[in-house]
Amino acid sequence: MDVFQAPNSDDGVDQTPLVALVQVTQKDMELVNTMILSRANSHVELVPQLARYLIKAGGKRLRPMLTLVAAKMFSEKQGYQINYAAAVEFMHNATLLHDDVVDESEMRRGQPAARKVWGNQASVLVGDFLLGQAFLMMVETGDLAALEVLSRAAAIIAEGEVLQLSKAGDLTTSEADYEQIIDAKTATLFEAATEVGAMAGDAPEMHRKALARYGRELGLAFQLVDDALDYGGVRGALGKNTGDDLREGKMTLPVIIALAHASKTERAIITAALGDGALDDGVFGDVLAIINSYDGLKITLERAHAHALAAREALDDLPASALCTILADMSDFCVARAY
Amino acid sequence: MDVFQAPNSDDGVDQTPLVALVQVTQKDMELVNTMILSRANSHVELVPQLARYLIKAGGKRLRPMLTLVAAKMFSEKQGYQINYAAAVEFMHNATLLHDDVVDESEMRRGQPAARKVWGNQASVLVGDFLLGQAFLMMVETGDLAALEVLSRAAAIIAEGEVLQLSKAGDLTTSEADYEQIIDAKTATLFEAATEVGAMAGDAPEMHRKALARYGRELGLAFQLVDDALDYGGVRGALGKNTGDDLREGKMTLPVIIALAHASKTERAIITAALGDGALDDGVFGDVLAIINSYDGLKITLERAHAHALAAREALDDLPASALCTILADMSDFCVARAY
Repeated sequence: MDVFQAPNSDDGVDQTPLVALVQVTQKDMELVNTMILSRANSHVELVPQLARYLIKAGGKRLRPMLTLVAAKMFSEKQGYQINYAAAVEFMHNATLLHDDVVDESEMRRGQPAARKVWGNQASVLVGDFLLGQAFLMMVETGDLAALEVLSRAAAIIAEGEVLQLSKAGDLTTSEADYEQIIDAKTATLFEAATEVGAMAGDAPEMHRKALARYGRELGLAFQLVDDALDYGGVRGALGKNTGDDLREGKMTLPVIIALAHASKTERAIITAALGDGALDDGVFGDVLAIINSYDGLKITLERAHAHALAAREALDDLPASALCTILADMSDFCVARAY
Repeated sequence: MDVFQAPNSDDGVDQTPLVALVQVTQKDMELVNTMILSRANSHVELVPQLARYLIKAGGKRLRPMLTLVAAKMFSEKQGYQINYAAAVEFMHNATLLHDDVVDESEMRRGQPAARKVWGNQASVLVGDFLLGQAFLMMVETGDLAALEVLSRAAAIIAEGEVLQLSKAGDLTTSEADYEQIIDAKTATLFEAATEVGAMAGDAPEMHRKALARYGRELGLAFQLVDDALDYGGVRGALGKNTGDDLREGKMTLPVIIALAHASKTERAIITAALGDGALDDGVFGDVLAIINSYDGLKITLERAHAHALAAREALDDLPASALCTILADMSDFCVARAY
């Protein structure tokens, strides 16, 4: 684990659920991390350089840990869960590389985005390489049902990203559009992560479906919280990462809610700010004040809460266990980040 | 077939082999084309708009036709070859979308590149979607061996593209580097196309391997010819598409050969031209004259000839048949384009 960062410490959030998840998956995650580093290798030097730059920066590795816990609920034996967990993380990293190109992002995981170091071109191509390697790791398991889940997920995620792109700066974007976007671009991979974990553990269909539902609801809660955090979270306070979505013209729920109620003047302020890459903190503060005046962040986080609750409820179909409790607590943890 | 273009007519080249290939695969290609258009569909409007723009522009569809002929050699029954052929063409199209972003191309298949119409961002994401759909079409067949061939190909193609990128403008690029690049980025998909075709036809291993070898050698010949055509082909004449590789700093064989023999002055001319996006015809003509003075195009095409011959020889391991003759003639046709 030495090359990987410890879980990020979100100030003031009780880290107990995440620590429990990390601990219970630690041994398997060592195998996953070994596989990740080995499959990011290539005789073409630029490939491992770029891939490892992103991979070693870490992140929480939430998705592969979810795959491992889901498998562990049904089987302690060494099955395909290592491959699936590594494949899920590769798919996630490929998406990040391409997203950063699409969003023209400067930073990722606390360091300059790979595209700032190696360029957009290399980021696109190494993303493709990681996706190819992800499929190869899945093919090696010989499990066609899991392969179908993950290849379908790859197409749906890309569709969600295209939808998000096509709605950028579009003032007519509805809450339904937004839900469709976050369902596709984020919840799909969380759902696939828990579902293929259950498959690796040979879970009965009912339990597999319950874990898939849990993953999906957790993913929705996760993205809603992310979108609220981009406006400073529940406190709506300016921070170093706030405002990126607004600058990129992303139509997330806080801004959709505000636009639905805004006066003509307020609407003009938001419209001018959306997609303005050079937006300063002053104007961002004005937009934030409008969003808060219509409870945009509060409502976004209420939705996140509702999905976290639905995630917890999905677990009711599973036999009670310590692992089940860890997953249930993770749903609260995902939302607690916003406070 | 109405939405697809007829095979491009390369002036002065005998089209008989291509026409024979088109005719013998016509019925199956109708199924492939239907599958391609249907799988390029999505509820996210931008996806089919962009994908169909590229797909309808056509191109020769050489790769899926090779898959179909390879299958037809061993079986007339409707097997998985339709899925494989469509998947191969999707992988090819995904690569084209990403390549055009990487190369900042203006044109593709005689019309503005998709990235010029919908932007780089959409091209990256729709490429990802097509790749996901390609895997899904393969998974549906349930044939793990073919899945492995195609997913391994996806990773190798991306590696080849990264290698090409990392060698751009690198004057130390060797002939061996160049061979590695074209083997990975082009020959791999030709090889996979014929190999999975043979798999769909349940070919015996010896015949499958022969067809894989044929595909690989044909792909090498094809790329060498492409790279010679970028400098005007054997006549070294200026044409509307000549000089792009030089402007992009691509280290292809003609320029590698020239650099190996160039005087200090000639080397300076080539070095200044490599990667100069605004290069005018005059300087391009100077570089071309240097290349021709060292037989750069002649040698490149001799290599293409050698690979076309190797492709033809690979077919010696197969029972003689009309289909075999069509494939053999295609190897000559690929090289004839350069004259």
